[in-house]
Amino acid sequence: MISNSIDARSSSTLAGSHRNTRLMIDKALPQLDLAHQSEVMGLSARPLSARRLSIDIAGLHRCLVDFVRCSYLGLDNHPEIIEGAIEAIKDHRALHWSCARTRMSFASLTLLESDLADLFQARVITYSSVLAANMGALPLLASGHLTAGNKPVLVFDRFAHATLAFHKATLAAETTVVTIDHNDISMLEQICKQNPVAAYICDGVYSMGGAAPVDGLLSLQQKYGLFLYIDDAHGISLFGRQGDGFVRSQIAGDLGERTIIAASLGKGFGASGGLLMLGSQQQEKLFRRFAIAHAFSASLNLAAVGAARASARLHRTAELLRRQISLQERIKGFDRLIKTDQQGSPLPIRTIRIGNEASAISAARALVDRGFFTSAIFFPTVPEGQAGLRLCLTAGHTPEEIEGLCNALHDIVPLCEGH
Amino acid sequence: MISNSIDARSSSTLAGSHRNTRLMIDKALPQLDLAHQSEVMGLSARPLSARRLSIDIAGLHRCLVDFVRCSYLGLDNHPEIIEGAIEAIKDHRALHWSCARTRMSFASLTLLESDLADLFQARVITYSSVLAANMGALPLLASGHLTAGNKPVLVFDRFAHATLAFHKATLAAETTVVTIDHNDISMLEQICKQNPVAAYICDGVYSMGGAAPVDGLLSLQQKYGLFLYIDDAHGISLFGRQGDGFVRSQIAGDLGERTIIAASLGKGFGASGGLLMLGSQQQEKLFRRFAIAHAFSASLNLAAVGAARASARLHRTAELLRRQISLQERIKGFDRLIKTDQQGSPLPIRTIRIGNEASAISAARALVDRGFFTSAIFFPTVPEGQAGLRLCLTAGHTPEEIEGLCNALHDIVPLCEGH
Repeated sequence: MISNSIDARSSSTLAGSHRNTRLMIDKALPQLDLAHQSEVMGLSARPLSARRLSIDIAGLHRCLVDFVRCSYLGLDNHPEIIEGAIEAIKDHRALHWSCARTRMSFASLTLLESDLADLFQARVITYSSVLAANMGALPLLASGHLTAGNKPVLVFDRFAHATLAFHKATLAAETTVVTIDHNDISMLEQICKQNPVAAYICDGVYSMGGAAPVDGLLSLQQKYGLFLYIDDAHGISLFGRQGDGFVRSQIAGDLGERTIIAASLGKGFGASGGLLMLGSQQQEKLFRRFAIAHAFSASLNLAAVGAARASARLHRTAELLRRQISLQERIKGFDRLIKTDQQGSPLPIRTIRIGNEASAISAARALVDRGFFTSAIFFPTVPEGQAGLRLCLTAGHTPEEIEGLCNALHDIVPLCEGH
Repeated sequence: MISNSIDARSSSTLAGSHRNTRLMIDKALPQLDLAHQSEVMGLSARPLSARRLSIDIAGLHRCLVDFVRCSYLGLDNHPEIIEGAIEAIKDHRALHWSCARTRMSFASLTLLESDLADLFQARVITYSSVLAANMGALPLLASGHLTAGNKPVLVFDRFAHATLAFHKATLAAETTVVTIDHNDISMLEQICKQNPVAAYICDGVYSMGGAAPVDGLLSLQQKYGLFLYIDDAHGISLFGRQGDGFVRSQIAGDLGERTIIAASLGKGFGASGGLLMLGSQQQEKLFRRFAIAHAFSASLNLAAVGAARASARLHRTAELLRRQISLQERIKGFDRLIKTDQQGSPLPIRTIRIGNEASAISAARALVDRGFFTSAIFFPTVPEGQAGLRLCLTAGHTPEEIEGLCNALHDIVPLCEGH
């Protein structure tokens, strides 16, 4: 059924060459060791107020302003969300049930899912993590059951999140899998033309900066029936009147039968876990029966359910918009002081290019010594030789903290070898 | 490096035929629909005391005695564990951090992992679920990094849990993958003889009854250096002076460099999440850098951390042994009244063979009407035509509840068509 005439193959990763864990480890290990030795990774910390952390560094508790966590709206320590988590446990005198969700769920989890469905105007199923949500969804997509019985050719964006790309070989055992260059809409259109059914798997907001061209993807969907599976873990809550996120807020009306959005209940949303937004009852039924994480793993625990219900309530108040606006102000404040590839974008992730891996790690360490915790990014998170820093800006940062970070970056990054 | 002379292939599943999601769905859907219509699956419930639940059935709240959840020691509503979950959230004024564990963890998670390491006499890393733990571990095993640089042939038990078997095609992109019959030690020995390095992937306690032949596996390990990856999700806490579980309690001294045990922090343990027990510092380092769920997904939330720390404390008290003994008494009480394939086993899972799928579902429904919630099991959980009921016996059941279930089974099961 799948055409063999995929010209995209020349630029694609094919079944059988999807993974080489050994090579990846051998390449990445020296840098990871250096990052651990430099005490910029693998740290233990306690939360202080707002975006401040107490982190153990060389046996001392250092108070750092954190730009690593992805709590973009600063909700992860919101008192109502914390209280929601505690109350759910108290109310049920339970935290977790060890049984597959296909059998039975906490009644409050059922209520949470209806509430999220109403909030995001989609059918919603929750999972213990986005990793679990993605793992459950992709084989169902490959099976053809979401595309009128026709197995789609699965087209991965080269930068699709690791928890998506992980499954390429598994999916290649079921249908044709192709990887195309990042945001290569014209290659995607070629594939749509050459195949009866195609599905595109990508991120909404990319964890290392940038976003999917949602408009372009929707027009390919309209033209060719392209199925879209978009992981919007980093986009949820930041956009839309009720925080439905970067991708959902660009889709007017129903999701329809050819779009699935994965998202996080952590990150912008401020609770814990993952979810899928689906467009039809039939899809929901299929996922509730067959998604592996639904049938063979555990659900959100009650603390996560209670926190998510509290956050859903907040998403219906004016506080959501206030925090969305604060985030945009912090992002603009940063962009006024530091130029990055993402300048001017309303998305909260900024990356600083450094190049050399050791230099990026040493820059992250110098920032720690100035009171700022950032992510050194290097292979396999980004390609070799493209190491740098990742900064997650949030509504919870003060303007002074953003300015302090920018001043430190001005001092430190030009001094890094290789910059 | 991997020999091609695997005679086991005739009885094995090979790369390219590891998955057929479409066929699985088409075969299983009618029975799953029937189970949902019969209201024995997909239910919403609230916990009552001990093993009792209030379940919505046909719009009414029915009080049922539950034999579905796997809280074998009845710890999932232990007041100290519930209190531990609440206190951890209160203490940190946080529930969850959205960042990869490779960057940073809650200090209390670090403390939990040291505590579990001491409890189980192994290096311990926790994960948000056993699904996530398994997904992270298997590619590292395939890479050869755990077996002195030699990629092992990966041998799956045919009944290995779905969250292990899911990854066969992914692993087949890295090394040779073979599936052998359940507990087929002599086939496994043949494979050990014919290949420089082999790794066996199986469950400790199987979720549908029975267990791995740990003694036999350990002697193959001694003779041929066989690597063992054993998912003991259902065996943890039930055996061993400190509850180290079915598999770990059969291994004297250190785990060594050729054994990894996955386990649940839910089920017998009574908290929420998953873990790996590792035997060496080098393995721990590798997992903390490269396991996908460690590098690209979230950790246990703080409620789970607090609950697990409280349960670890309980595992050091006389209460653990008392509950282990109660469980054995309940199992013996059941075995005196009902004959099953598992009769006489100290493991808490009993299955009732019925055969026909519709009959198994109707038996589960008849039990609901008598006040007992059990799991109807059928394809793909068990092979076609081997449907039945699964009963999870726990220390939290009263002798009267066990007797009531047995009486109901005597009345109901012989009446089921096809039995």
